[in-house]
Amino acid sequence: MSKLAEFKAFYGRIEDLKQSSSLLSWDQNVYMPEGAHETRAQQLATLNSVIHELMTSNRMKDFLAALSKENFAEESDEGRLLARASRNVEQASKLPAEFVETLTLQRSRAVSTWLKARAQNNFKLFEEDLTKIFDLVRQQADYLGYDSHPYDALHDQYEMGSTVAELKPMFAELREETVKLLKVLGEAKQIDNGLMHQAYSIDRQREVSEDVARLIGYDFQHGRLDPTVHPFAQDISKYDVRITTKYMENWFASSFFGTIHEVGHALYEQGIADKYHRTPLGTAVSLGVHESQSRLYENMVGRSQSFWQGYYPSLQKHFPENLAEVSLADFYRAINKVEPSLIRIEADEVTYNMHILVRFELELALLEGNLKVADLPEAWNEKYQRYLGITPPNDAQGCLQDVHWSEGIIGYFPTYTLGNLMSVQLFEAAQRAYPNIVEDMKKGEFDNLLGWLRETIHQHGSKYTPAELVTKATGQALTAKPYIQYLNQKFKSVYGIQ
Amino acid sequence: MSKLAEFKAFYGRIEDLKQSSSLLSWDQNVYMPEGAHETRAQQLATLNSVIHELMTSNRMKDFLAALSKENFAEESDEGRLLARASRNVEQASKLPAEFVETLTLQRSRAVSTWLKARAQNNFKLFEEDLTKIFDLVRQQADYLGYDSHPYDALHDQYEMGSTVAELKPMFAELREETVKLLKVLGEAKQIDNGLMHQAYSIDRQREVSEDVARLIGYDFQHGRLDPTVHPFAQDISKYDVRITTKYMENWFASSFFGTIHEVGHALYEQGIADKYHRTPLGTAVSLGVHESQSRLYENMVGRSQSFWQGYYPSLQKHFPENLAEVSLADFYRAINKVEPSLIRIEADEVTYNMHILVRFELELALLEGNLKVADLPEAWNEKYQRYLGITPPNDAQGCLQDVHWSEGIIGYFPTYTLGNLMSVQLFEAAQRAYPNIVEDMKKGEFDNLLGWLRETIHQHGSKYTPAELVTKATGQALTAKPYIQYLNQKFKSVYGIQ
Repeated sequence: MSKLAEFKAFYGRIEDLKQSSSLLSWDQNVYMPEGAHETRAQQLATLNSVIHELMTSNRMKDFLAALSKENFAEESDEGRLLARASRNVEQASKLPAEFVETLTLQRSRAVSTWLKARAQNNFKLFEEDLTKIFDLVRQQADYLGYDSHPYDALHDQYEMGSTVAELKPMFAELREETVKLLKVLGEAKQIDNGLMHQAYSIDRQREVSEDVARLIGYDFQHGRLDPTVHPFAQDISKYDVRITTKYMENWFASSFFGTIHEVGHALYEQGIADKYHRTPLGTAVSLGVHESQSRLYENMVGRSQSFWQGYYPSLQKHFPENLAEVSLADFYRAINKVEPSLIRIEADEVTYNMHILVRFELELALLEGNLKVADLPEAWNEKYQRYLGITPPNDAQGCLQDVHWSEGIIGYFPTYTLGNLMSVQLFEAAQRAYPNIVEDMKKGEFDNLLGWLRETIHQHGSKYTPAELVTKATGQALTAKPYIQYLNQKFKSVYGIQ
Repeated sequence: MSKLAEFKAFYGRIEDLKQSSSLLSWDQNVYMPEGAHETRAQQLATLNSVIHELMTSNRMKDFLAALSKENFAEESDEGRLLARASRNVEQASKLPAEFVETLTLQRSRAVSTWLKARAQNNFKLFEEDLTKIFDLVRQQADYLGYDSHPYDALHDQYEMGSTVAELKPMFAELREETVKLLKVLGEAKQIDNGLMHQAYSIDRQREVSEDVARLIGYDFQHGRLDPTVHPFAQDISKYDVRITTKYMENWFASSFFGTIHEVGHALYEQGIADKYHRTPLGTAVSLGVHESQSRLYENMVGRSQSFWQGYYPSLQKHFPENLAEVSLADFYRAINKVEPSLIRIEADEVTYNMHILVRFELELALLEGNLKVADLPEAWNEKYQRYLGITPPNDAQGCLQDVHWSEGIIGYFPTYTLGNLMSVQLFEAAQRAYPNIVEDMKKGEFDNLLGWLRETIHQHGSKYTPAELVTKATGQALTAKPYIQYLNQKFKSVYGIQ
């Protein structure tokens, strides 16, 4: 066996353990009995510590040292595989064990304080623990290392290579243009989406979710769809990518668009090249690219006029009591209603990024020391008023709404907006390659779209950085312009504005 | 930290990995997508090899050597814990890695040949692979070591301390008495159990299964009930013990008695003392003792007159269209119909052990070299004729019906009958301790029964050997007599024989 083959066998075992850990997480969120939380945490801690031991073992270091002498071409699969493995090992080695323990402890403390603070709508309760979290992640950034901004070190864990220096101007442009668009839309005739809030049979929602998942390409032979409270996609391996959705009787959009969103994530994982299975390249490259796939399917497909020209008759057949008398045009408008609101996860396509930008700017200010945790609620409310024209009536609906910060997850939020920006830039490139993609949707055909995404994005796993992937796929670096143009075009048309 | 505490922390991690492996198995049998079989096998192989490495590591040996000097009292928890750990380590060390690989390979080959042979009803296809399996398990017995019979080495893996020398006379007595009883019952007026084969609503079967599970003590906070093709109970840990059942529209006994059977298994695991969690004592001691719990609940409870005096009105309410006009007496007779049949897993209480004894006797003869694999079908059919008075029309319904042998699982079958024998001996001891147990069932009360089993069996986990447990709990060593007496008494009464 060659040294490389030996290394792959060794690394493959680590991937097997990671896959096992993923299954434990999936189960924890879907079917685990309530009384098993403590033992599950213990099982996961042990699995992850075994993984960490193997990642930072001498055997690993010896392999990487020996293989670095074999001079694989940098751009070859082998070269990229070893580079990615080295990066993973380096990342795993950077944080001292005691620091990880302190952070883990503080996280679980902060989550429980946050739950209480949110329930009691009392930010003061959370202030001390959140301050500690920010102190710790500043230290974490130092351990991880960065060139120009500590935020880069944190953000890089979720979006390799992306930096504050790049995000700031791109997000500023997006913010200005979105605020402008929101003003225009706010002055137009508003949309009544009451038809979305009627009672839709849960059983038939389930049928429709499965149907649309299959239609757009989700492979049930290598996945499954289950109901949960908080929807997610979880890859165990590329051969077992599971999705969940939330069925709400009076808001069928929850299950429908939620399913399409998670299918977008799942198609990425299911499409990674077989040859990367059990290697460091066998996973999605970043959260931003992941989100680009889910948002592309949710919005460019699921909320498009063409898709519904094809699918609406079928939806009407499933819900005649709700939709028999509703025209396609009215339905299309209803699913695309824009309205500034307080809660991120309920936001529409236009306002969604404003929720992210508020968080990004506040994370930066907190990390830089330009904002004190004590002043966070006020800063939050001020930004919501400025960007969205509304002020949270309380902190539970304001800066206490997300779990991320209590979990020490800082630098993650921007990936949602990066995903949105990528989704349009990619979709337009796909249309250039296959000009019929939009027409195909009217006929319920999605093969060319999926084929193009497989070719340009999915198959590559972690071989390329997010920036390389986007540039290779679309011919240019990521910018906010296509997205801004898309929003303006689509929503001015939806709102009947010239 | 004391050396013992350090050791427990070390061993606890191995238990965490075993628990993870159990969850992977559960998922594989319940919810895993079809296309994930190969990766699941790989994940399990890696997990189990990590467990094996830790079990046979120098660190483990050093711990055991150091702790052996601390002279814990043999009967103390600590003494037993270390003895059990040593035994586990010894067992894990006995089989050379290449042998395990050869056996694993041959098993998977044999299973696939067996599937084909059964489907085509062609024993010849299976002959070569089964011959190899028996060659390998004979070698396995040599590696494991034994005093007087190679079968003991294999059987001991499932039933610690049990031997051919003990089984043979006990089983011979059981066989003779059962053949006698079957003759008597065969001459009596036969029971018509047509009412069991009507259509029972699956949804209501599900309600009833959950209801009866809860009623007899299953803790849904630490478990769950799912539908499967092949019902089983799987402990992840004592805090997460899951059961499955099979819902058949025209045979509601499948889900009802199947659920009670699996609940019996689960109560054992859920009842192990908290202090043994993540230690070598934190699991059920043997398959025989396990089966005694499932059979006690299935038969002494679930098929008893007293239970149905309490529960029948509720069942009638669930299935009025099937049972409103059926008397309790007729129902009770129907669920206790005795009839020699070909398929083990469909057998009634009286004939069930005959299926086991056939397999036990044939395993012995094959292992001793007194029977050639080529002659197995003939030997099988001859025994079925002799003990049950029927001859399989083909090998698919004969010696090809079970998966066990193709999987190299030899020495396992007797544990089913050991469980049956124990179940009655234990139930009678429980009645001596709590004379009202049978009366309680009429009132839907099961606490004293469960309390007694918790006290005498469940809590002890693997602290005592099966023989010790039975003797401590019942005041005498295991014998076939109580069971034979129980069968005679119950079934002569069911069949109206003096």
